[in-house]
Amino acid sequence: MKPSLPSGFRDFAPDVLRKRNYIFDTIKKVFNTFGYDPIETPSLENLNTLTGKYGEEGDTLLYKVLNSGDFLRKAKNIDNYLRLIPEICDRGMRYDLTVPFARYVVMNQTAISFPFKRSQIQPVWRAEHTQRGRYREFYQCDADVIGSTSLVYEAELIQIYDTVFSHLKLPVVIKINNRKILGGVAEIAGIPDKMQLMATAIDKLDKIGLDGVKRELQRFEIDEPAQNIILSCLEISNLQDLAVKFAPSETGLKGIAEMQTVLERSQKASLTNVLEFEITLARGLSYYTGTILEVKARDIAYGSIGGGGRYDDLTGIFGLKGVSGVGISFGADRIYDVMEEAGLFADTAKTALRVLFLPMTEDAVDFCYETMTALRRKNIVCEMYPDAAKFQKQMKYANAREVPFVAIIGEDELAAGEITLKNMATGAQERIKTADLSTKIY
Amino acid sequence: MKPSLPSGFRDFAPDVLRKRNYIFDTIKKVFNTFGYDPIETPSLENLNTLTGKYGEEGDTLLYKVLNSGDFLRKAKNIDNYLRLIPEICDRGMRYDLTVPFARYVVMNQTAISFPFKRSQIQPVWRAEHTQRGRYREFYQCDADVIGSTSLVYEAELIQIYDTVFSHLKLPVVIKINNRKILGGVAEIAGIPDKMQLMATAIDKLDKIGLDGVKRELQRFEIDEPAQNIILSCLEISNLQDLAVKFAPSETGLKGIAEMQTVLERSQKASLTNVLEFEITLARGLSYYTGTILEVKARDIAYGSIGGGGRYDDLTGIFGLKGVSGVGISFGADRIYDVMEEAGLFADTAKTALRVLFLPMTEDAVDFCYETMTALRRKNIVCEMYPDAAKFQKQMKYANAREVPFVAIIGEDELAAGEITLKNMATGAQERIKTADLSTKIY
Repeated sequence: MKPSLPSGFRDFAPDVLRKRNYIFDTIKKVFNTFGYDPIETPSLENLNTLTGKYGEEGDTLLYKVLNSGDFLRKAKNIDNYLRLIPEICDRGMRYDLTVPFARYVVMNQTAISFPFKRSQIQPVWRAEHTQRGRYREFYQCDADVIGSTSLVYEAELIQIYDTVFSHLKLPVVIKINNRKILGGVAEIAGIPDKMQLMATAIDKLDKIGLDGVKRELQRFEIDEPAQNIILSCLEISNLQDLAVKFAPSETGLKGIAEMQTVLERSQKASLTNVLEFEITLARGLSYYTGTILEVKARDIAYGSIGGGGRYDDLTGIFGLKGVSGVGISFGADRIYDVMEEAGLFADTAKTALRVLFLPMTEDAVDFCYETMTALRRKNIVCEMYPDAAKFQKQMKYANAREVPFVAIIGEDELAAGEITLKNMATGAQERIKTADLSTKIY
Repeated sequence: MKPSLPSGFRDFAPDVLRKRNYIFDTIKKVFNTFGYDPIETPSLENLNTLTGKYGEEGDTLLYKVLNSGDFLRKAKNIDNYLRLIPEICDRGMRYDLTVPFARYVVMNQTAISFPFKRSQIQPVWRAEHTQRGRYREFYQCDADVIGSTSLVYEAELIQIYDTVFSHLKLPVVIKINNRKILGGVAEIAGIPDKMQLMATAIDKLDKIGLDGVKRELQRFEIDEPAQNIILSCLEISNLQDLAVKFAPSETGLKGIAEMQTVLERSQKASLTNVLEFEITLARGLSYYTGTILEVKARDIAYGSIGGGGRYDDLTGIFGLKGVSGVGISFGADRIYDVMEEAGLFADTAKTALRVLFLPMTEDAVDFCYETMTALRRKNIVCEMYPDAAKFQKQMKYANAREVPFVAIIGEDELAAGEITLKNMATGAQERIKTADLSTKIY
């Protein structure tokens, strides 16, 4: 049988994984410095924890796990696959980190001290149609604070974005909006009940232009005067000017006040990256109640590589009402693509291996092994070709491993307690004392 | 709805996860120093990659994932659940790391430079009956070398065990045997075709004693003279003495020669832990062709916390014959239990959080936030209570977070640019300059 991988799933070879781990490790370190405690939830949840939480389409994209043993025994709806699913599948695979986090908080509410700052980095699974750049297994990296309405956390999460991308040397623009500002626009346009539709339309401004937005608003049966008020708001980037327009909308003014607090705090923190108010930013919206965040690479055209915002009822679905939260997410796979395109992995991608020992005789094998043991005690990453094979074969292996130095040990070297050290980049070769090796290879 | 977890699956709270990550990070670091490149394989494999690889029982323990959409459309065996499975499930969840690794090697054989040293740390899933200490989702941590018969790697993997447990400060006994030595015993007892049964019997010596082993051998229809030869071998711990007994068995002598090479190399590497030849060690056996390894905690009675050995045909199941390999595995969940029992997490278990800021007034909130920003630039883990809540409430939170220091900022402190620093362990309290904070909390 010729083995293969299921479509939409990936192996990660060492060179790719090294780069991915560089991203994850950077994010983890920053989450830790900012006090976001890591948690993990299981890969499988009870199916009824998941169904109905991601909309109708989400339900079809959930991976369901077949019950063990004679799963048909209790099945009644043998002729209706949709009704059969809950009869033969008690569990489903994690679809995102948000619903499991909400379940976790509700189940552990008495043990948790609120505000609870948690981070979570785990894979999720979605039965999407596969296409370039879309996978059925991918990682989510989330940080959330739950149990506080303080705007300190908005500023803190923006700082986390800023710090991570500054460590990754990837310049980004962090875009910020507030649902209450969108609410203000809808109120002064006299269409508070169509706020969600309006947000969907103006979110597309980048792609379809002002005329396109106008057509969309028209399509949603928002009348001409309202259209004009909405479009006039889109041209304002100054919060003071917007406040004047928002005079009749309490919601809108509240949104501006929140925005100002967050921007001022962020300014004092002297961010490395650009933080930019963008009135069109909506990101689905239905979920968010306050601040909305999105991150894009500054110099490379690509979609969003991060996003988040404030929500007010994460745990309500599991019976715990009135707990406010705010969170952000990093799109690790997308960050990987952008960094690859920007050539930012140059240094980290290199193999950690510093030196490869090549024994020319069987007697040299033990000498190599002992020398390696000493180096490894110093945390120097080294290896040996495991037997006295032909020199050409050994060198071919050394080239394939992209090792910076090889240490050649033949009869002469063994007798003299020395090593022939070859710099693989320059080709230079020299005889050195074994004791000098660890300094020569750096 | 009251949320719950499926049986056999676990959430990991921050304090537990911190300890688990300490174990994983230690193992990863050592794998890296010894040149074992990390790979990852997907959580889902084609079901036919997995079925038939773990025996009949293994097949029933595999988690199968229901196909998307109308999975019943092509189903013919609606009345036979066993035949229905492959019709409605194309994919299954990773059951171990070995079969996916074999698949990986076969699929990437032209790109890989052999010997290929790989490490892999990922969760696996098994639909086991749940019981205390047995989970349906757990991590495996494997290191393997494939494509070389050199005994250098046996010594290297033993050194990895030794280094990891020495870093974890958990004293262990590393037990070693060789299938060829068990083969030798079976040959001189005249029962080479019953070697596997014999191994199963003597593997139980610890539990059932010599008489028990004799009864087991009897049960397998191994006759009295053969029984006596076998039992006489079990009393020998000296390799020279065993070599004398093995004179007529080429296999047995080969096993002893291999064992001697590995033991000698290990001795030169001056291991921290005990490496011990144990003739009864079999570990399932059918899989192993040379060295067999097992690790147990030295001072705590518990099962095996690691195991491995040499195999000769890992990739044969996928059509690539004659590739020898040797590998080891760490039982992370078991290591966790043993370390918890031995109280070895004392230091690492502590929260990383050093200082919690408590703003007494709303004005102090911004001051706290700015001071935190400066500390976090120095990678000092700090946090603040996000609003000027009642002092008692704030202190309750500080206690729950087990933070070593709190920094209290009231009106006076704010005016003076100072901080009241409280040591939570001693209760001592002092007024300090803000600039001195980072040195005072270490």
